[in-house]
Amino acid sequence: MSKNSKPKLTVKEATGKLGILTPGMGAVASTFIAGCIASRKGLSKPLGSLTQMGRIRIGKRTEGKSPLVKEYISLTSLENLEFGGWDIFSDNMYEACKRAAVLKPEDIEPIKEELSAIKPMKAVFSEKYIQRIRGENIIKEGTLWEKAQMLRADIQNFKKEKNCERVVMVWCGSTEAYCEPSEVHMTMEAFEAGLKADSDKIPPSQVYAYAALKEGVPYANGAPNLTVDIPAFVKYSTEHRVPIAGRDFKTGQTLMKTILAPGFKVRGLGIKGWYSINILGNRDGEVLDHPDNFKTKEVSKLGVLQTILQPELYPEQYGDLYHKVLINYYPPRGDNKEGWDNIDIFGWMGYDMQIKVNFLCRDSILAAPLVLDLALFMDLAGRTGFGGIQEWLSFYFKAPQVKEGLYPEHDIFIQSMKLKNTLRAMKGDVEITHTGLDYYDYYQE
Amino acid sequence: MSKNSKPKLTVKEATGKLGILTPGMGAVASTFIAGCIASRKGLSKPLGSLTQMGRIRIGKRTEGKSPLVKEYISLTSLENLEFGGWDIFSDNMYEACKRAAVLKPEDIEPIKEELSAIKPMKAVFSEKYIQRIRGENIIKEGTLWEKAQMLRADIQNFKKEKNCERVVMVWCGSTEAYCEPSEVHMTMEAFEAGLKADSDKIPPSQVYAYAALKEGVPYANGAPNLTVDIPAFVKYSTEHRVPIAGRDFKTGQTLMKTILAPGFKVRGLGIKGWYSINILGNRDGEVLDHPDNFKTKEVSKLGVLQTILQPELYPEQYGDLYHKVLINYYPPRGDNKEGWDNIDIFGWMGYDMQIKVNFLCRDSILAAPLVLDLALFMDLAGRTGFGGIQEWLSFYFKAPQVKEGLYPEHDIFIQSMKLKNTLRAMKGDVEITHTGLDYYDYYQE
Amino acid sequence: MSKNSKPKLTVKEATGKLGILTPGMGAVASTFIAGCIASRKGLSKPLGSLTQMGRIRIGKRTEGKSPLVKEYISLTSLENLEFGGWDIFSDNMYEACKRAAVLKPEDIEPIKEELSAIKPMKAVFSEKYIQRIRGENIIKEGTLWEKAQMLRADIQNFKKEKNCERVVMVWCGSTEAYCEPSEVHMTMEAFEAGLKADSDKIPPSQVYAYAALKEGVPYANGAPNLTVDIPAFVKYSTEHRVPIAGRDFKTGQTLMKTILAPGFKVRGLGIKGWYSINILGNRDGEVLDHPDNFKTKEVSKLGVLQTILQPELYPEQYGDLYHKVLINYYPPRGDNKEGWDNIDIFGWMGYDMQIKVNFLCRDSILAAPLVLDLALFMDLAGRTGFGGIQEWLSFYFKAPQVKEGLYPEHDIFIQSMKLKNTLRAMKGDVEITHTGLDYYDYYQE
Amino acid sequence: MSKNSKPKLTVKEATGKLGILTPGMGAVASTFIAGCIASRKGLSKPLGSLTQMGRIRIGKRTEGKSPLVKEYISLTSLENLEFGGWDIFSDNMYEACKRAAVLKPEDIEPIKEELSAIKPMKAVFSEKYIQRIRGENIIKEGTLWEKAQMLRADIQNFKKEKNCERVVMVWCGSTEAYCEPSEVHMTMEAFEAGLKADSDKIPPSQVYAYAALKEGVPYANGAPNLTVDIPAFVKYSTEHRVPIAGRDFKTGQTLMKTILAPGFKVRGLGIKGWYSINILGNRDGEVLDHPDNFKTKEVSKLGVLQTILQPELYPEQYGDLYHKVLINYYPPRGDNKEGWDNIDIFGWMGYDMQIKVNFLCRDSILAAPLVLDLALFMDLAGRTGFGGIQEWLSFYFKAPQVKEGLYPEHDIFIQSMKLKNTLRAMKGDVEITHTGLDYYDYYQE
Repeated sequence: MSKNSKPKLTVKEATGKLGILTPGMGAVASTFIAGCIASRKGLSKPLGSLTQMGRIRIGKRTEGKSPLVKEYISLTSLENLEFGGWDIFSDNMYEACKRAAVLKPEDIEPIKEELSAIKPMKAVFSEKYIQRIRGENIIKEGTLWEKAQMLRADIQNFKKEKNCERVVMVWCGSTEAYCEPSEVHMTMEAFEAGLKADSDKIPPSQVYAYAALKEGVPYANGAPNLTVDIPAFVKYSTEHRVPIAGRDFKTGQTLMKTILAPGFKVRGLGIKGWYSINILGNRDGEVLDHPDNFKTKEVSKLGVLQTILQPELYPEQYGDLYHKVLINYYPPRGDNKEGWDNIDIFGWMGYDMQIKVNFLCRDSILAAPLVLDLALFMDLAGRTGFGGIQEWLSFYFKAPQVKEGLYPEHDIFIQSMKLKNTLRAMKGDVEITHTGLDYYDYYQE
Repeated sequence: MSKNSKPKLTVKEATGKLGILTPGMGAVASTFIAGCIASRKGLSKPLGSLTQMGRIRIGKRTEGKSPLVKEYISLTSLENLEFGGWDIFSDNMYEACKRAAVLKPEDIEPIKEELSAIKPMKAVFSEKYIQRIRGENIIKEGTLWEKAQMLRADIQNFKKEKNCERVVMVWCGSTEAYCEPSEVHMTMEAFEAGLKADSDKIPPSQVYAYAALKEGVPYANGAPNLTVDIPAFVKYSTEHRVPIAGRDFKTGQTLMKTILAPGFKVRGLGIKGWYSINILGNRDGEVLDHPDNFKTKEVSKLGVLQTILQPELYPEQYGDLYHKVLINYYPPRGDNKEGWDNIDIFGWMGYDMQIKVNFLCRDSILAAPLVLDLALFMDLAGRTGFGGIQEWLSFYFKAPQVKEGLYPEHDIFIQSMKLKNTLRAMKGDVEITHTGLDYYDYYQE
Repeated sequence: MSKNSKPKLTVKEATGKLGILTPGMGAVASTFIAGCIASRKGLSKPLGSLTQMGRIRIGKRTEGKSPLVKEYISLTSLENLEFGGWDIFSDNMYEACKRAAVLKPEDIEPIKEELSAIKPMKAVFSEKYIQRIRGENIIKEGTLWEKAQMLRADIQNFKKEKNCERVVMVWCGSTEAYCEPSEVHMTMEAFEAGLKADSDKIPPSQVYAYAALKEGVPYANGAPNLTVDIPAFVKYSTEHRVPIAGRDFKTGQTLMKTILAPGFKVRGLGIKGWYSINILGNRDGEVLDHPDNFKTKEVSKLGVLQTILQPELYPEQYGDLYHKVLINYYPPRGDNKEGWDNIDIFGWMGYDMQIKVNFLCRDSILAAPLVLDLALFMDLAGRTGFGGIQEWLSFYFKAPQVKEGLYPEHDIFIQSMKLKNTLRAMKGDVEITHTGLDYYDYYQE
Repeated sequence: MSKNSKPKLTVKEATGKLGILTPGMGAVASTFIAGCIASRKGLSKPLGSLTQMGRIRIGKRTEGKSPLVKEYISLTSLENLEFGGWDIFSDNMYEACKRAAVLKPEDIEPIKEELSAIKPMKAVFSEKYIQRIRGENIIKEGTLWEKAQMLRADIQNFKKEKNCERVVMVWCGSTEAYCEPSEVHMTMEAFEAGLKADSDKIPPSQVYAYAALKEGVPYANGAPNLTVDIPAFVKYSTEHRVPIAGRDFKTGQTLMKTILAPGFKVRGLGIKGWYSINILGNRDGEVLDHPDNFKTKEVSKLGVLQTILQPELYPEQYGDLYHKVLINYYPPRGDNKEGWDNIDIFGWMGYDMQIKVNFLCRDSILAAPLVLDLALFMDLAGRTGFGGIQEWLSFYFKAPQVKEGLYPEHDIFIQSMKLKNTLRAMKGDVEITHTGLDYYDYYQE
C-alpha cells in the first residue's frame, strides 16, 4: 500500500496504430465500432468511456487538477485505432448494425462507408459449445491446432495490412456452454497436445485466446466463458508479460447491484432479500431463457452480492439474504432489456424497508464503451510490462479474474479506486486515500 | 496524503460514562434511545450503526483482519451511555415512542420502565424560528443569555447526576426557519452581546450550541439549520478543541442519491434529468409541504448532485442535468416516507435509458443509528484532540460542514473511505488505497 | 334480455340461521371468520364485501335510490351466521389466526374466546392430491364412500347443534393436484360406484362436494380444483336445485388484470405483451414455486386475458400478445404477496407505450369477503330456486364455471353488471343498461 | 330504460364527404390527420379508434354476432374525410408533424405530399385567454362578431371547395384561461350582443363554437375550456338539433384512473389516498407547470374520483380519500408523458394494501383516435336527429357534459356500455344488460 517501497513503473509511449480484434462481431462489436467511427468524425460522443471522457484527480482537493484520463497517461487515440475480427456470419459492420437494431438509422447511415469496409474473417466454431445459432462464415476444415495457426496468421496479416504497431483482442461473442478446467488446461504443453488431438474440452474461445497469447496480444474476455481462467494461460501470460483479463462485461442489472449493494453495506443496513428479474427480447434473451444456459449466467450473477456483502463477517446483516435472479425471454422488449429489482432491507432494531428499482436499459450501449476502455487499458498494461491477470481492470467485469488466493472485488467504487490509483502508480503520483486530515489543524503539537 | 510525514495521533481511552444530550426528543431521539436500551438488554440489534456492528479491514486482503470498529478503536459502550435532552413537550420517552408510532407496541412495552424514566428538560423556544408547533415545556422567562446559562447548568447537573465523565450533544429537533449568517455570528464577542441583547438573529439551536461549546461538549447538527456553521463557533471550537459537525442527517432519498449518483458517474454515464418526489404523512411532511420551509430543505437536497457530478468538469455528461426535488404531504403514508425517483441517463453515442427507484422507507429508523454513531465518534474526536469541524464525519450528513475553501464530499463511498482511513490514521495503521498492485508480479526488475 | 317475457322470480325470506362450512380452515377461513365476528361486535368493518357494504342503484339516476344490497334483497345477517368446517390440523380458529399471521395481535385478542370455540372437524385427506403438507386431524379409516357418509353426518350434526335452518359450503382449502374429468365423473351412478371402490380419480374436494349436494347444501369452490365442474355434479345439482359455483377466488394480480385488460380493450388499445410476476413467501408460495403445482394455477391465470381480449375478433390488437405469468417463492415477503406487471400496449399508428403495476397486496384480506359474499349469495340462489351453475356469481372467480357452450365472462365490470342485474331481476325491478337516452329530448316527433 | 316504449330512431345514411375542421392544428391534430391519411393508404392502422377497429356484440352470446362498428352503423369512411382547420402558426401539416416530434420520420415522409397540402386558416386569437404563445397566422382586425362571420365564411368555403356534404368541428387547441359562465353566456341574444361589443368574457373557442352552431356544424370540445357548456349554446343546439359534446379528451393518467377506480369500487375496496404525478416535457407541460393554468386542469382531474366513488353513498370506503394530482414540467421527458400513481387501498377489517402504477405514455397518440371517433359519432348524432348535449359520448371526455340535474358518468365501463347501447338503440336492436339468466334453467314452473 505504501507506494514508496515499490520499484518505479515505466510506461512506454502509445506510438503508432493499435488494432482491436473482436471474436464475435454482432450487436456489441458493431455498436462499439460504429461509436468509435462516429466519434472520430465528430458525429457522436464516446460517452460511458473512462479513457475518452473520464477525468482523474491528481493531488489535493485544493489544487484543482483533474486532467482527462487520456491526457494524463499515454493511450492510443481513436484516430489511431483499426478494427477487425471474426464472426460466423459474413455481415459487414454496416449490415451487422442494421440487423442488431441497436442504433437508429440516422446514426448508421452517415458512416455507412466505413462500416461496410469492415468484414469479419472466418470464425472457429463448435456446435458443442455454441448452440442454437449456425453461420456459414466458418473455418470448416482442419484440427483445432490448424485452426489456431490460421488465427495466428489472421492476426499477423491484419497487423501488417493495417500497419498496426500493436494489437489487442476483446471477446465480444456468445456465451459458450458451461465448461470446467480439466487436464488439458493445466499446462501449455497439455493444451497444445489437446489442440492437435482436437480435444472436445477446448471451446472455440480458447483457440482464439491461445492464438492471441502466442502472438503477444492481450486478451480480454467479455463473456462468462472459462477461456483464459486456466492455469496454462495464467502461467504463460504472466511469464511472457501478456495481459489477460475477464470475465463478463459488467452492464445492466449487475452494474446496478454493484452500485446499490455497497451503498447498503456502507450504511450497515441489513438485507433480507433481493429479487431480480430481467426481461429481454433479443436472441440473447432467448438463449438465456433456457435453464442450461441460464445456469452459467446465474452462477456469475449470484456471486456478486456474496463478495460485496461478506456474510461471513456480517452474519446478522447478510447471513439470511435470500437472493434470486431470473432472466426471462420477453419478445415485446425487443433489443432493449428491462430489470426489476425488489430489495428488502432492514435497519435499526430490525425494522424493514423496501426498495424497488426498475431499469429500462440498453445492453449494447452499456457494453460498447467497455470494449474500448479494455482495449486501450490492456494495451497500456502491455506497454507498462504488466503480464498475466490485470486485477486493476476488475471495474469492467461481472466476475473479475484474480490471482489464486485472492477474493475478487465486486464493489464498483473499490474497483474504480483500484483502477485510478493504479494509473497514479503508473505515473508515479501519490495515491489517493480520501482521508484529508491534513487540511485541518488537528494534530497535537 | 502520505501518512508518514504526519505527527502521531493519540487517542485517550473511553473511560467512564458518556452522556448524550439531544435538543429535540421526538420521533428520532425516542427511537434512538429505545434502540440503545433494547440492544443493551439483548432485545434488539443496533443495526445501521457503524460503531456497533460495522467492521474495518486492516492490512492486506490476504491477512483476513476485519475487526469490529468498536473493538478496533476505543469507544464508549452502550452500557456506559446516559440519555437526556430538552423538548417543548413534556412527554417522557415512553410516551414519545407511543406518540411517534415508529416502533411497534411489542418493542416498546418491554422497556417501558427505562423509557419512562427519561424526561425532557425545559426547552429554549422561539415562535419566530419554529412555527406551527407549540409546547408548554419551555423556559418562559429571561434573555437568551440567561437561557444559555440555564442550559449550561442543565448540562452540568446532568453530568453530575448521571456521573458522566464526558457529554456530547446531537440536535434531533425541528428544522428552523431559514437564516443566513450575519454580524452577530462573526465573533464570539458579538454573539455573546447578541445573547444579552436578545437578538432575533439567534435561533434556539445556536443557544444550545453555545452552551455546549462553552461546556466543552461536542455538538453535531442533525437538521439543515445554520447553528454551528458560523465563523464565531468555527473559530472558538477549533481553538478550544471542541468537535463540531453538521448538517442534516443523511437518510432516505438523499442517501439513495449519494449511492446512485457516484455509480453513474464512476461509469461515465450522463444524466439528463433526475426527478425526485417524496411523500410523507407525519408532522414533518406537513411542515415541509409549505413552500417556505421546503425551500431550506430543497437547497440542501439540490446541492448533493452538483458536488458529486462536477458538471464544471463534465459538462457533456452533467451540464444540462434537470434536477427537481419535491416533498408532498400525503397523510395516508403516516409516519413512513416514500420516495419515487425517475432518472434519465444516457450512454454511448448519447443513447438514453431510464431508471425508476421506489423507496418505501422509515425516516426515524434510518436516522437513529446516525445519532448513536455521531455521539460516539464526536466523543472519539474529542479524545483524539480534534477540534472544530469534523469533515471525516461527512458520511452522516446531507450537507457536510467543511473548512472554508474546500468543497464538501457527497459521494458516500468517498465519505466512508475518509471515515475509515481516519480511524486507521488515529491508530497509526496504514491507510487503504485499494490499488493492490503488490499482490502481482508486475514490476520490472 | 327483455325481462318482460320471463316468468316472475320468487325469493324466499332468509329466516333463521345460516351455517357456513369451510373445508380448509387455514389463513383464508380464519381471516374470514375473525372478520365476521369482529364486525358483529362492532370492532371492525366487513370491507370488500358487496353483501355487507355495497349498494345497488335502482331506477333512474335522477331518482337517487341506491339502497345497501343487504337492505335491497333478503340475506342472512352476520348475527345469524354459524361457522364450522374441516381441516387436517386441529388448530382452533384463534390458533389458526395466530399461525397465519395475517391479522395483527390487537385484532385477534379481543375475539379470542369466540375464535377458540370454533374447532375443525376431522378432514378427508389424500396424499396423492394434497402434497407437502401432513396433518393429524384426518379420518383415517374407511372407503371414500364411508368418508362421504361421515361428512354428511357432520353436516347434519352441525346443522342441528347450531340450530341452522340452512347450510352452505365454501371450499377454502389447498389447490389439489391436477385432475381431468374421467369416466367416474360422468354420472352420479358412476361417481357413487367410484366412492365405494375408493377410486383414485376422486380427490378429497369431490367427496366434500358430493356430501354437500346430497344434503342439499350449495357448494362454492375457492380453489382451481376440478371439484363440481363435472357432468355428474352439474346434472345432479341442476335437477335437485342445489346451487354450485367456481372456480378459484379472484384476488390479487388476476383481479387487477380483469380490471385493466377491459380498460385497454374498451379503448381499442392493442397489447403486445403482458409480463406478470408474483412473489410470495408463505406456504402457498412454496407450493406454487414447484413447476407441477404452478402449471394448474398457470392455466387458470393465462385464460383470463384470452377471454377478455377476444383475439379471434381483434387479431390486430391482441393476436400477437405475449403473455407470461410467473409465481416465485420469496420468503422475505412473508404472508404478503407482491405483483409486478409490465404491460406493453400500442395505440394510434402502432405507437407503443408501457405500463408497470406494482401491487403490494394481502391475499387472505382480499379473499375473506369473497367467502362471505359467496356464502350469502349461494344461499340466496337456493332460496330463489336457482339450481346448478350460478354464472351470475362469476364476479368472484378467476375461472368462472359456465354452462357448456357458453364462454365465461372475465371482465369484472360485465361480471358486476351481471350480478347486479340478476339481483334486480330477482326483485322484479327494471335492469339497467346505462343507455340513458330518455333523459334527453332526442326523439323525433 | 325499457326500449320498447320509445319512438323508433332513424339514422340517415352517411352519404358523400364529411369535412373535419379542427381549431388548433398542432401535435394532436397533425397526428390525427397523419394517421388517417396513412391508414387510408394502408401504411398504418387507426388503432385506438372504436369506429374503425372496434366491434359491437349483437344478440346473445351464443349467436356469435360481433360486427365492426363501422359495418354495423352508417359512418363516413376514412376515404370520404376532408381535413382542415385554423391555427395561429402557419405550418402546414407536414411541418406541424415534424415540429411536434410525435411521429417518427419514417412514418411522416411517405405521406409528405398529402400533409403539406393541408394548411391552417387564420385563427381567432386572444392574448387574455391564450398565454405564453404567440403566432402570426391570426385574424388581426375586426370585432369578435366580424371574426365570427369570417369563420362562418371559412366553413362555407371549405365545404364548397372540398365538396363536403356535412362538416363537424373538433377543438384540438390549447387550454384557455379559466372562465366562468356570465351574463353574456345566458342567451343567444346576449351572446351575439357580446360578440358585437367585443366582450372580454368571450374566449376564442366560443367564437368558433358560435360559428359552428350557426352553420349547423356539430362541435366537440377536446380541452377543459368552458366553450359550449353555457345555457345559450345548450339551448340553441338542442332546438336546432346540432350536436355538442365535451370536455377534455380522456387520455393518460385520467384514463387509467377511470379504469382503476371503478375496479376498486366494484370490489368494495376502500381508498385512503391517491397520489398522482405527471411529468411531461413539451409546451403543454411548461404551461401546466404554472399554478394558474394547472388549477383549471386540476379541477377537471380531481372531479373524476368523486363521481366514480360516490363518497356520499360510501363514506366508510371513500369518505376520507386524500386525492392529490400534480403536473410537473420535466424537459428530459420531451414529447412523452409519464405518470406515477400511488394508491392506498384497504379491505377486509381495514387492512391496507398499496398499488403503484407507472405509465409511460404518449399524449397525442392517445388523443388522435378520439378526434376521429368524435368527428364520426357527432356526425352520426346529427344524422340521427340528436340535438344538443351528447351524453352518450361521455366515453371520450375527462369531464363529460350532461344535462342540468344529472351527474356525469366517469366510469369508463359504464360510459362504454352507454355508447354501445345507444348504437343498438339507434339500430333498433335489443340493449345488452349482461344478466344472462335466460341461458339457464332457473325459472320455477
